[in-house]
Amino acid sequence: MHKHQVQLMCLCDCCGCAEIYWEGGEEKQTQKHPFRICCCFVLCCRPPKLREISWLLFVFFSSDIEISRAQSPKAVDVLAKEIGLLTDEIEIYGQTKAKVRLSLLERLKDQPDGKYVLVAGITPTPLGEGKSTVTIGLVQALTAHLSINSFACLRQPSQGPTFGVKGGAAGGGYAQVIPMEEFNLHLTGDIHAITAANNLLAAAIDARILHENTQSDKALYNRLVPAVNGVRGFSAIQLARLRRLGIYKTDPDTLTEEEVRKFARLDIDPSTITWQRVVDTNDRFLRKITVGQANTEKGFIRQAQFDIAVASEIMAILALTTSLQDMKERLGKMVVANDKKGEPVTAEDLGVTGALAVLMKDAIKPTLMQTLEGTPVFVHAGPFANIAHGNSSVLADKIALKLVGEKGFVVTEAGFGADIGMEKFFNIKCRASGLVPSVVVLVATVRALKMHGGGPNVTAGAPLKKEYTEENLQLVAGGCCNLQKQIQIAQLFGVPVVVAVNIFKTDSAAEVDLVCKIAKQSGAFDAVPCNHWSAGGGGAVKLAQAVEEAARQKTSFKYLYSLELPIVEKIRIIAQKVYGAQDIELSPAAQSQVDRYTQQGFGNLPICMAKTHLSLSHQPERKGVPTGFILPISDVRASIGAGFIYPLVGTMSTMPGLPTRPCFYDIDLDPITEEVKGLF
Amino acid sequence: MHKHQVQLMCLCDCCGCAEIYWEGGEEKQTQKHPFRICCCFVLCCRPPKLREISWLLFVFFSSDIEISRAQSPKAVDVLAKEIGLLTDEIEIYGQTKAKVRLSLLERLKDQPDGKYVLVAGITPTPLGEGKSTVTIGLVQALTAHLSINSFACLRQPSQGPTFGVKGGAAGGGYAQVIPMEEFNLHLTGDIHAITAANNLLAAAIDARILHENTQSDKALYNRLVPAVNGVRGFSAIQLARLRRLGIYKTDPDTLTEEEVRKFARLDIDPSTITWQRVVDTNDRFLRKITVGQANTEKGFIRQAQFDIAVASEIMAILALTTSLQDMKERLGKMVVANDKKGEPVTAEDLGVTGALAVLMKDAIKPTLMQTLEGTPVFVHAGPFANIAHGNSSVLADKIALKLVGEKGFVVTEAGFGADIGMEKFFNIKCRASGLVPSVVVLVATVRALKMHGGGPNVTAGAPLKKEYTEENLQLVAGGCCNLQKQIQIAQLFGVPVVVAVNIFKTDSAAEVDLVCKIAKQSGAFDAVPCNHWSAGGGGAVKLAQAVEEAARQKTSFKYLYSLELPIVEKIRIIAQKVYGAQDIELSPAAQSQVDRYTQQGFGNLPICMAKTHLSLSHQPERKGVPTGFILPISDVRASIGAGFIYPLVGTMSTMPGLPTRPCFYDIDLDPITEEVKGLF
Repeated sequence: MHKHQVQLMCLCDCCGCAEIYWEGGEEKQTQKHPFRICCCFVLCCRPPKLREISWLLFVFFSSDIEISRAQSPKAVDVLAKEIGLLTDEIEIYGQTKAKVRLSLLERLKDQPDGKYVLVAGITPTPLGEGKSTVTIGLVQALTAHLSINSFACLRQPSQGPTFGVKGGAAGGGYAQVIPMEEFNLHLTGDIHAITAANNLLAAAIDARILHENTQSDKALYNRLVPAVNGVRGFSAIQLARLRRLGIYKTDPDTLTEEEVRKFARLDIDPSTITWQRVVDTNDRFLRKITVGQANTEKGFIRQAQFDIAVASEIMAILALTTSLQDMKERLGKMVVANDKKGEPVTAEDLGVTGALAVLMKDAIKPTLMQTLEGTPVFVHAGPFANIAHGNSSVLADKIALKLVGEKGFVVTEAGFGADIGMEKFFNIKCRASGLVPSVVVLVATVRALKMHGGGPNVTAGAPLKKEYTEENLQLVAGGCCNLQKQIQIAQLFGVPVVVAVNIFKTDSAAEVDLVCKIAKQSGAFDAVPCNHWSAGGGGAVKLAQAVEEAARQKTSFKYLYSLELPIVEKIRIIAQKVYGAQDIELSPAAQSQVDRYTQQGFGNLPICMAKTHLSLSHQPERKGVPTGFILPISDVRASIGAGFIYPLVGTMSTMPGLPTRPCFYDIDLDPITEEVKGLF
Repeated sequence: MHKHQVQLMCLCDCCGCAEIYWEGGEEKQTQKHPFRICCCFVLCCRPPKLREISWLLFVFFSSDIEISRAQSPKAVDVLAKEIGLLTDEIEIYGQTKAKVRLSLLERLKDQPDGKYVLVAGITPTPLGEGKSTVTIGLVQALTAHLSINSFACLRQPSQGPTFGVKGGAAGGGYAQVIPMEEFNLHLTGDIHAITAANNLLAAAIDARILHENTQSDKALYNRLVPAVNGVRGFSAIQLARLRRLGIYKTDPDTLTEEEVRKFARLDIDPSTITWQRVVDTNDRFLRKITVGQANTEKGFIRQAQFDIAVASEIMAILALTTSLQDMKERLGKMVVANDKKGEPVTAEDLGVTGALAVLMKDAIKPTLMQTLEGTPVFVHAGPFANIAHGNSSVLADKIALKLVGEKGFVVTEAGFGADIGMEKFFNIKCRASGLVPSVVVLVATVRALKMHGGGPNVTAGAPLKKEYTEENLQLVAGGCCNLQKQIQIAQLFGVPVVVAVNIFKTDSAAEVDLVCKIAKQSGAFDAVPCNHWSAGGGGAVKLAQAVEEAARQKTSFKYLYSLELPIVEKIRIIAQKVYGAQDIELSPAAQSQVDRYTQQGFGNLPICMAKTHLSLSHQPERKGVPTGFILPISDVRASIGAGFIYPLVGTMSTMPGLPTRPCFYDIDLDPITEEVKGLF
């Protein structure tokens, strides 16, 4: 088995030196460098006290990007070699990123998979509870501190919000993916590829409607099947369409008038178009627009919208696909509208499948990066967690599971609370991949538990109330019901739970102890405090040990529902068993969509609930464990290519906006050093 | 001096062998490979006759992408080493592309520049005359056949049209950039970066108007300058704005009400917004749209449009910038609208300069690729040739001129005919770069000359009329007036002209001879036929020799007009001296814009004419050398960041559409081999 090598460097800048120590024990070097981070206090040229003071000063005054920048990442080809990739299995993008080829899955197909760990969370505050930092802290602990192979698999963040409210998403403190500016910006272009593919399809829909509406059957057919150098022939994509229509002719001149019409007209009903354009920008003015108002479009205006790029179904496909062939099939199956007879119209009907696959041919390869402590990370796919399933890619997880080997760990993260992200991870992602998870790490914070226990509102941007900065055991105890419920949800799937209490400096020891005690009483395999944010992997060693122990448990993983059940029944199971709803109630629109999808043959897909993440119920203000509510399903939609039905519980915004003072006020580039400032 | 190394490989597949021969003479290797192209017939294991037959068969049956694929590109790090780049000066993107760091300009600042060659064309048919293939054929001839260092600098093509009508733009036949699918698709993400930056600015404009319209001065100010942990402060970008407003305070609490208002309100007049959103997709339905129709935008709807991404001013900036610092300044200076007092509002006023620079930090580095014969190519920037200047980047040219050394050649291409692309190259690009061109290569085809001589219309997609496939010396002679005029235009700038006649298989020897004869009589330094399309660099050796000879001439390069002249006077000089117009006529709207820009202090910028490329006049149907026309200027606009005023001569479409049968019907991806099919 290969060993991941770890760079351990001296923090204190007094001596101007830094040591690089290869934990594999093969090599030991000294390098001059004035200011580096010592990951684990293993090596230092100063006595412990001075070392710790300088460390604390550094932590205190450092922003995430400063911490990220203070650590030089190792060259990605070195990392790739360390984790056992062959030279022709990677495509390097700059010094710190590489795409990994899918051919590796074939080479390692007989290698047993490692342990598969999901990081999920309790119902969060709007500030988030730190699932990403736990994910990164955990792999740093496993590999850099316990010498166990591990991989973190993360979602690629949307670039739009980086300049809006949210800032970066590379983890934080001493549990980060580096360089964080690469992680948060274009990365290796996957989201740009999705944007291009998504919008090509959107343009093809409107252009096709225009051309069909302004041409006779014959003119349309002659343009679709032109004579090239006097010879007329169908393209491969057109022959496939003919076969779908039950026409088994290959000579364009032999089609009957009726066949010409069937072939040439998709007859899209514009009012049924569900395919939207996307941009990776927070552009609220594109939430509802009218398109086609130029004279050249001859009056075929219609109302449309732009979503943020990661809301594209193509992102969900990227996250769920298992191979290039599978991706191509899923892209072709995407339903974009109905025709005037109510039949689904697909990307394949528009003849665009091949072009979409070409645009996505590099995006399908996961991107390799590293944590602050030099351990490997895959960043791949980042679908929405409401209208999509909110998990990183199946392919990254599969490749990572081969690379870490049987005794290694792959830690992957699900968006939102466990009621949403984890439920979808099990019922949608694991179903697509066939992978069986070993452990769930459930992230909780004292802050969020206090909120569930009746603490005041927590709002992004506003200062925290004193309930959150002073010890309050009563609020904590009151809020642990949410933690208990989320543990029980994980247990529905037969997977052991380790609770990770993500420690903030204002948390008291008594508060943390209380959470751990209640977690264990509630059925968690273990519950441990984590200090990875301030201390890196060293702060998550106990968590890593607990996870390793839990992974030795025998699991009996099972899905929550059978795909064969009717759509409404599947929705009800999730609502009742996971959310604790009394029942569900479908609007007439939702019921009619259910009927339509069932009639169109899409009834056997899994369910992807689009619900607020701020409550187990549909009402964000209901904290703790709400009961007795009827979950209202306002509409039901489908991502046929991705392969799920998504019921809407309320309105989901798919386009964020820019606030009065967006993040970009603080973002700058130093033209001399090329350093990015102000990302956090 | 370094030598470019050239791979020469065996074509005939009968023996299953291919030789790699390093022309530098240092190394000679044999490699097994079944089917490679022999660039120059230097090495082959079969007798000449058989060799040539297999070559011809290959040429006959090959599409551009098949030719591209049949030649395996050398690894880009090998290429980088060959041309003298240091390891830390490149950032590799996969096996065949790399970005080159600008630090190289500092390292080689004392190295004399090479010779600077511009490839321009006569007034083209809608099919294009092959400037890109001449550019590539010429460098292949120089380096692979004459052992002279050279670099081709090309524009990055827009991805949208690749799936629409146009197909790829990597050159063609045996004068191509490879791999062509990489060249034509995402490349290294520069256009995606432009899209992201452009749209962030667009979103910032509308969001700012909304926030200003819905908040009091005080609320707006409090949000713009919030207290963070009880402390209120201006960000660097806000302090800069205060200084521009003449307010030299640093404590947010000391501003007067009037100062608060001035600081917090940009007061953008929505009717004056010139900044449009962009996508790199042919999406005709976005040509005119209404935005802001969702309830959340509170009724602030307005009419807007999307342009294709390469029409963004940021693309023009990328093409003209000379450093990161310069790019940042240009981005900040971009004028996006006027305020209600008629003063320009810039990106800097919106506080977004730093974020735009961050998004563009990698795009500023030119992308290194290679020709089919293994010689180096920079692909960098691809601004529109009508509303912008249509030339590849200054930075790529500058770096290439250092890399080729004093005796080497950099061949760069200008869009459209010489009356547009070349004029802008000299007056806009050379002014921005300070570089002095040595030679103009003017590309002509017998086909286009026949059109100018009165031949029937040439239309994309329709079969060519017999006038174009049979010898017709009279039409050729009649059309040479256009060639003569374009030569004279180049001579206005004091640069010698070599005419390259791009040979098609239907051209007769007598026709080609006639063109060469007339060209020389018209003042060209030389005129030579070129067969690079069918024969690679070997087919352009005579051209290379002529260019080398011409570059020895003493030049007296001069701009056509002084920047100090009034805007209207500069327009008139171009119209009269270059286009041969009798005079110009400004619409009232155009005149009022001229007055406004002059008053705003932008009168000293160069002029970038937005005119049809299909005629020297404004009327595309007027071929040859039209005279006696009055050039109508319908409107005048400005790209202040890029640094030019652009008068509109007629309507320019900035968003192409998809036809009834778009290219994507033929595009596919083989999921097993990962090969792209159908790009051409």
